[in-house]
Amino acid sequence: MKISARNVLKGKIIDVTKGATTAHVKIEIGGRIIVTSSITNAAVDELGLKVGQEAFAIIKASDVMVGVAD
Amino acid sequence: MKISARNVLKGKIIDVTKGATTAHVKIEIGGRIIVTSSITNAAVDELGLKVGQEAFAIIKASDVMVGVAD
Amino acid sequence: MKISARNVLKGKIIDVTKGATTAHVKIEIGGRIIVTSSITNAAVDELGLKVGQEAFAIIKASDVMVGVAD
Amino acid sequence: MKISARNVLKGKIIDVTKGATTAHVKIEIGGRIIVTSSITNAAVDELGLKVGQEAFAIIKASDVMVGVAD
Amino acid sequence: MKISARNVLKGKIIDVTKGATTAHVKIEIGGRIIVTSSITNAAVDELGLKVGQEAFAIIKASDVMVGVAD
Amino acid sequence: MKISARNVLKGKIIDVTKGATTAHVKIEIGGRIIVTSSITNAAVDELGLKVGQEAFAIIKASDVMVGVAD
Repeated sequence: MKISARNVLKGKIIDVTKGATTAHVKIEIGGRIIVTSSITNAAVDELGLKVGQEAFAIIKASDVMVGVAD
Repeated sequence: MKISARNVLKGKIIDVTKGATTAHVKIEIGGRIIVTSSITNAAVDELGLKVGQEAFAIIKASDVMVGVAD
Repeated sequence: MKISARNVLKGKIIDVTKGATTAHVKIEIGGRIIVTSSITNAAVDELGLKVGQEAFAIIKASDVMVGVAD
Repeated sequence: MKISARNVLKGKIIDVTKGATTAHVKIEIGGRIIVTSSITNAAVDELGLKVGQEAFAIIKASDVMVGVAD
Repeated sequence: MKISARNVLKGKIIDVTKGATTAHVKIEIGGRIIVTSSITNAAVDELGLKVGQEAFAIIKASDVMVGVAD
Repeated sequence: MKISARNVLKGKIIDVTKGATTAHVKIEIGGRIIVTSSITNAAVDELGLKVGQEAFAIIKASDVMVGVAD
C-alpha cells in the first residue's frame, strides 16, 4: 500500500515499551535521529514490532509544526 | 520555551510554498531526510520562515504511526 | 507496507477537489458511508488519485472521537 | 451541537477497554465496518459509554489519510 | 450531541477567512484569549459560521501539547 | 524557540495524572477555562511539570474544530 502521508521515514526500531493500552515505539532514522511514536498495544502486537526491526515512522504533513530559535 | 512534543528534529528549510491559506514547508534534517510540514500562511509570515534558515520539525508522538514492509 | 493505524477502511474514491495547496478526497466505504479526507495536492498527484479508484481511508485511533446523542 | 468535523459516522459501540489513563472504544458502523477510537478514561466515564449503545465516530478531515494498493 | 473531546471552549467568532479549500476561523474565548481553527470551507458553509456568532472551539486532549519557559 | 502553532495559551498547571505510559495535564488559562492535555509520561518527567507551575497549552490550528449550538 502507498499512503498519502508526506513523511515516511525509514529506520530501525530501538525501543518498544508497552503500557496498559498505549505503547511507545522509538525508531532511529538516518543514523542519530530518533523518532518516538505513541500507538496502541494492539498495533504493536498485530505488526509484531520488536527492537532491531526495520520500520517506517509515518507522519501526515498537517501534524508537523515548525519551530525556530528565538 | 521547551515543549512536551517528543520529536523536535533540527534541520534547514529547503522549500516554502504558500497557498491561499495553507503553506507547505520542507525541512531537511540529518542530511538526506526531508520532512514536509503543512502550516498556516500566518505562521510562515509571523516566524519569517525562508529557504536556508535553520528550523525544527516538531511532531507530537501521538501523531507518529509505524509501518513495516509486508 | 502494513501500518499501525487501527482504521484502514476500504472503499472507492467518489470525489477529488484540489485547492491551492490542499485537496479534499471523498471515499465511499461500505455502500452509503462517505469519509472526507484533507491531504496535500502533492499526495493526490503522487498517488494519482482519481474518481472511481479503489482506495483506503486511513485513520489513527487517537484521531477518532466518540459522540453520543444528548 | 453541530460540529465542523466532516466525518460523523453513526454506529453502535461493540467494545470499551479502559487502560490506566487511556481507553479504546470500538464502534461498528454500517454493518461490518469497525472504527477504533482512543480517548481518555474520563471521556468514557463522563459520556457513560457502554457496549450496545448508539454512538458516533467523529473524525476531522485533516486526520484522514488515503492509501492505494501498490 | 455530547462529544468525548476534553476541551470544548465556549466563545464568539471574531474572524472567518476562506481560502481555496481551507478556512481559518478565530474564536474569542474568555475575554482576551483567541483560538484559531483551520477547517474546510465546506464546514464553514454547512454550519453557516459568521463573525459575532457564539461557537465552541473543540480540541481532543491528545492534540494539546504543553510548553514551559526555559 | 518560537513555534508555528497558532494557539499558545498561557496558564497554570492545576493537575498532573500519570498513567502507565500516558499522562493527563490540566492547565487553567484565563481564570476559569481549563484545557486538558494528554502527553507522554516521559514529557512530564523531562519538563518537570508540576501543579502550580506556569505553562502553555499549545495547539496546532488544524487540530481545532468548531461547534455551534443546534
